[in-house]
Amino acid sequence: MIMTAATDLQALLDGPHAALREDTRRRLSKLGLERADGLSRDDYRDLVLTWVKEVGGSGDGARSFPASVGGQDDPGGRIATFQTTGHSDLSLLVKMGVQFGLFGGAVHRLGTERHLPLLRDIGTVDLPGCFAMSESGHGSDVRSIRTQARYDADAGEFVVHTPDETARKDWIGSAARHARMAAVFAQLDVAGEAQGVHCFLVPLRSADGEVLDGVEIEDCGDKMGLQGVDNGRLRFNAVRIPRDNLLDRFGTVSPEGVYSSPIATPGARFFTMIGALVEGRICIAGAGLAVARNALTIAVRWGERRRQFGTGLDMDTPLMDYLTHQRRLLPAVCESYVLQAAHDHLTASYVEVLNGGEGQRDVEALAAGLKAVATWHMVGAVQNARECCGGKGYLTENRFASLRDDSDIFTTFEGDNTVLMQLVAKTLLSDYAAQFEDLDALGLVRHLGSRQAGRMLSDVTRRFEKTSLLDPEWQLDALRFREERLVDSLARRLRTLTQREGIEPLRALARCQDHALAAARAHLERQAHELFQPNVTGELLVQVRDLAVLSTIERDRAWWLEHGFLSPDASKDLQKEVNTLCRELRPHALTLVAGFGIPDALLRAPIAVAEQVGGAGSD
Amino acid sequence: MIMTAATDLQALLDGPHAALREDTRRRLSKLGLERADGLSRDDYRDLVLTWVKEVGGSGDGARSFPASVGGQDDPGGRIATFQTTGHSDLSLLVKMGVQFGLFGGAVHRLGTERHLPLLRDIGTVDLPGCFAMSESGHGSDVRSIRTQARYDADAGEFVVHTPDETARKDWIGSAARHARMAAVFAQLDVAGEAQGVHCFLVPLRSADGEVLDGVEIEDCGDKMGLQGVDNGRLRFNAVRIPRDNLLDRFGTVSPEGVYSSPIATPGARFFTMIGALVEGRICIAGAGLAVARNALTIAVRWGERRRQFGTGLDMDTPLMDYLTHQRRLLPAVCESYVLQAAHDHLTASYVEVLNGGEGQRDVEALAAGLKAVATWHMVGAVQNARECCGGKGYLTENRFASLRDDSDIFTTFEGDNTVLMQLVAKTLLSDYAAQFEDLDALGLVRHLGSRQAGRMLSDVTRRFEKTSLLDPEWQLDALRFREERLVDSLARRLRTLTQREGIEPLRALARCQDHALAAARAHLERQAHELFQPNVTGELLVQVRDLAVLSTIERDRAWWLEHGFLSPDASKDLQKEVNTLCRELRPHALTLVAGFGIPDALLRAPIAVAEQVGGAGSD
Repeated sequence: MIMTAATDLQALLDGPHAALREDTRRRLSKLGLERADGLSRDDYRDLVLTWVKEVGGSGDGARSFPASVGGQDDPGGRIATFQTTGHSDLSLLVKMGVQFGLFGGAVHRLGTERHLPLLRDIGTVDLPGCFAMSESGHGSDVRSIRTQARYDADAGEFVVHTPDETARKDWIGSAARHARMAAVFAQLDVAGEAQGVHCFLVPLRSADGEVLDGVEIEDCGDKMGLQGVDNGRLRFNAVRIPRDNLLDRFGTVSPEGVYSSPIATPGARFFTMIGALVEGRICIAGAGLAVARNALTIAVRWGERRRQFGTGLDMDTPLMDYLTHQRRLLPAVCESYVLQAAHDHLTASYVEVLNGGEGQRDVEALAAGLKAVATWHMVGAVQNARECCGGKGYLTENRFASLRDDSDIFTTFEGDNTVLMQLVAKTLLSDYAAQFEDLDALGLVRHLGSRQAGRMLSDVTRRFEKTSLLDPEWQLDALRFREERLVDSLARRLRTLTQREGIEPLRALARCQDHALAAARAHLERQAHELFQPNVTGELLVQVRDLAVLSTIERDRAWWLEHGFLSPDASKDLQKEVNTLCRELRPHALTLVAGFGIPDALLRAPIAVAEQVGGAGSD
Repeated sequence: MIMTAATDLQALLDGPHAALREDTRRRLSKLGLERADGLSRDDYRDLVLTWVKEVGGSGDGARSFPASVGGQDDPGGRIATFQTTGHSDLSLLVKMGVQFGLFGGAVHRLGTERHLPLLRDIGTVDLPGCFAMSESGHGSDVRSIRTQARYDADAGEFVVHTPDETARKDWIGSAARHARMAAVFAQLDVAGEAQGVHCFLVPLRSADGEVLDGVEIEDCGDKMGLQGVDNGRLRFNAVRIPRDNLLDRFGTVSPEGVYSSPIATPGARFFTMIGALVEGRICIAGAGLAVARNALTIAVRWGERRRQFGTGLDMDTPLMDYLTHQRRLLPAVCESYVLQAAHDHLTASYVEVLNGGEGQRDVEALAAGLKAVATWHMVGAVQNARECCGGKGYLTENRFASLRDDSDIFTTFEGDNTVLMQLVAKTLLSDYAAQFEDLDALGLVRHLGSRQAGRMLSDVTRRFEKTSLLDPEWQLDALRFREERLVDSLARRLRTLTQREGIEPLRALARCQDHALAAARAHLERQAHELFQPNVTGELLVQVRDLAVLSTIERDRAWWLEHGFLSPDASKDLQKEVNTLCRELRPHALTLVAGFGIPDALLRAPIAVAEQVGGAGSD
């Protein structure tokens, strides 16, 4: 019985790639992660490179690459093993992501037949590379990058050049020490005509590690975390590369200097090109969920072991028995299960799109939104878990130092979370507009008006009267109602600002930024809970769902109160119900974190060794 | 004009000890804080010790000690300089706190005439010491510590002994490397009779640094931060100390072995004894506010310098122009001003109590509550500020790494925040009970019943109808209403649990822990805003107050909605008003952080050098 519950939960989280994840956990457990402890920065970086090579040697590096070049055509599997690696050293995770996902991904997704053979050496790490997109002046705004790539038809070469400091490539993982080649994003100029952002392969170092002529490399210096990743800055001084080094799947240049592309407009080309980023976001979302689970596992196990002797009472009470402790940890544990369902769906949809399926825009929006929601969930879970472990959590040996410092940048890289949530909001708005595209402006306003009135008189009243906190239909209804209303009212505000006040659309959106973010979050939360619903089998998962959804609603319950969906009394009942669910789930806390399936050899926190607390679960 | 606003703001924050703070800033700026960068742990610790000695040499170490032993009888001044030190290296801050505040404070407040001369060498750091209270098995529960101190009347000595691992002294700052003496808290046993916790001076090391017989010292190991503080673990193996080494202000032992105390019960004695902790909490609250200001200063200045090129728009917009950015930073900037008023009041009241004034319980409750609220404010401000600085914030050179990792333990030490908030709730409940002590149980229930009914029919309706967000009376009314109602309803729930269900009072309180924490927070927030009110002079401070109080109410607005104080429409207006205030205060953002008065030499963040952004303010 005891093991069954935890095993079932783990099977749910491991999903379709369970065997692969188990294999990855076993493989990572043998890497000797403790060897990084106390190393100098350079030695740590070199050790991480050897780990990345071991991953490459295991075949996992080429997992998503085509079978024709030694890969397995399995991007879904790669996303799963990447997430599982989030339980281990995060410098390894990020360096792997750079080599196989970003550098390899650029060659794979943006290159053509003549580039694919490179993937053999990329997968085995015989060719360590990097992904040079971000520039010092243009963090989250790739379209504005300023690195130049001019085609010289006489020489049949591109000239890659950094015109000034704002165009310096910045934060490039693997650039400072190991990369021999970079996938460089630059503005293509053919015969004086700007063709927009394209990606070029630029050699950086010789086989023996010498930096090549015209390339300038500098270390970004000490970072808060991820010291095992050699982030660097790159400048190019009129570096010449052969014409073949353009990754030309979406735009090519003939020897004579004629540009052609299967995609008509530079705008559309650009979006296709940076579509390559979407896999990175999916990967970071998954890793963020893994990091949160690490922290929650440590805190729950310690909360079970640590006894607090209550002053004046003869009680020897585990910390986990306290309501505040339960409230800090259990909702996040349950949300971990819910968010994984969204991640599984995202991964599957992404693979479908890669295989020619529909829904690319939805995948891009979900990737952006889930990356933000999952990494913010991570930041909160890690901080709460650290505080719940008190002084023990402050000791380096108990992992919070590295967990937090290494993962903190997840909210920033692969797109700043706030910027990503705005992307989601923009997608919601265009879906909204598309829904009504047959109506003229006036018609839309009229339509909105009647919809609103209708809802106020019927739907809301019905809902208000029928608050039923533990009914999954009511729960989803609440989440759907919020999303619908927020998008609706956002569209109205924008309409007023643009049509009546004549404000330019993007400026108008900037004025409603908090509204847009709320709409995006509502969208993500609704989606995640809908996607989790089919996973709810058995009593324990019913409670997991209830606590996750009710604590989500509780956090923002003011909104439902303001919009007549919750009565003041129902809102108070909601809080009581969260307390009740915390109490009911408390005996299953160890089981729920056992379901995360993190081996001690990866967790590496002495206060959270599974056997010492019956980590397999106590049900 | 430009300088005036910032100068006035700084004068407000600097308060009655402005000259002393300015002197401290100047002194700290000359310490050469950058010398710590890149040092090994041991070298860093030794450097910090030399800094602490420089502080001692400046006279600041003995500031709160009696003039008779070279001090200045100025505890308020010490609290101010300690807070100002929060802008510099936090290992220095904590090590100073251990030497002068905890170790010196124990000798000063718990010792008698014969101990005071030690304060000379403590103030100059010729006698480096430590404060050995926490034990591995009893973190936040001092009453349950298990270190033994048995009086041996034949030898006229105490025998200090660690009976087992849970009684091991843990996390003792300065113990691992530098302390020559410890103020050890232990259970006094005189002739077989337990007299409760007392404090003893136990020599640890000889003048040349050799660990003395019977003392076992071990390093706590690497920590997330504060690597410049040598935290250690202590075990005593029947260590003998002279009878005079008992700090015997509140309880003494005659040579023959007769115990006597001016305080009758061991319980009261205990609370008097650990009253010494209150100054530590006041100091950490102040330091937490200083750390938050460091982070906010860096983020606001960078937000002003950093331009985001909006895709598709021809705009070159500083990050600070974005509403989300403003919402993440400006409310916290304003709360910094508000919370300082509470801290100033706390300091002044504490000094009054030291001088024989009334109100010790209030001071203890405010110290506990403000320590928790201020350090949680700090955690949120630092995280938001880091994320607002993106990748730049992740570079060690820009200070967030050390700011966050060094300060994170503030939520844990000097009492875990959650435990402290429960202390506040207990004080509120006893005040509440005292208010009605002339009524019998039934009378109280009846009285509560009529009060409640009366409020529902008159007060609330009046308030509800008259929402006036920018009226300071309405603002305080809202905060008072919440506090009153939360304490009221908490008392009712406890009454039901204890009287009707027969649950033991402390267990009943544990059942209502979330309610108790909410009441404590409501109490603190009301108090802080009341205390800030007299400081509001001039238009800018009116806006600072409005944004601080309205964003506080906004965060928990569901509560006011649930209790009929805010109508749904008023609650929506509240959010709009927060946006409006953010927009109105945005041009003053640099001025507001200039008012924090942090010199570049202490801030040490290249992205936030004052001159580069017109740091003196732009009004």
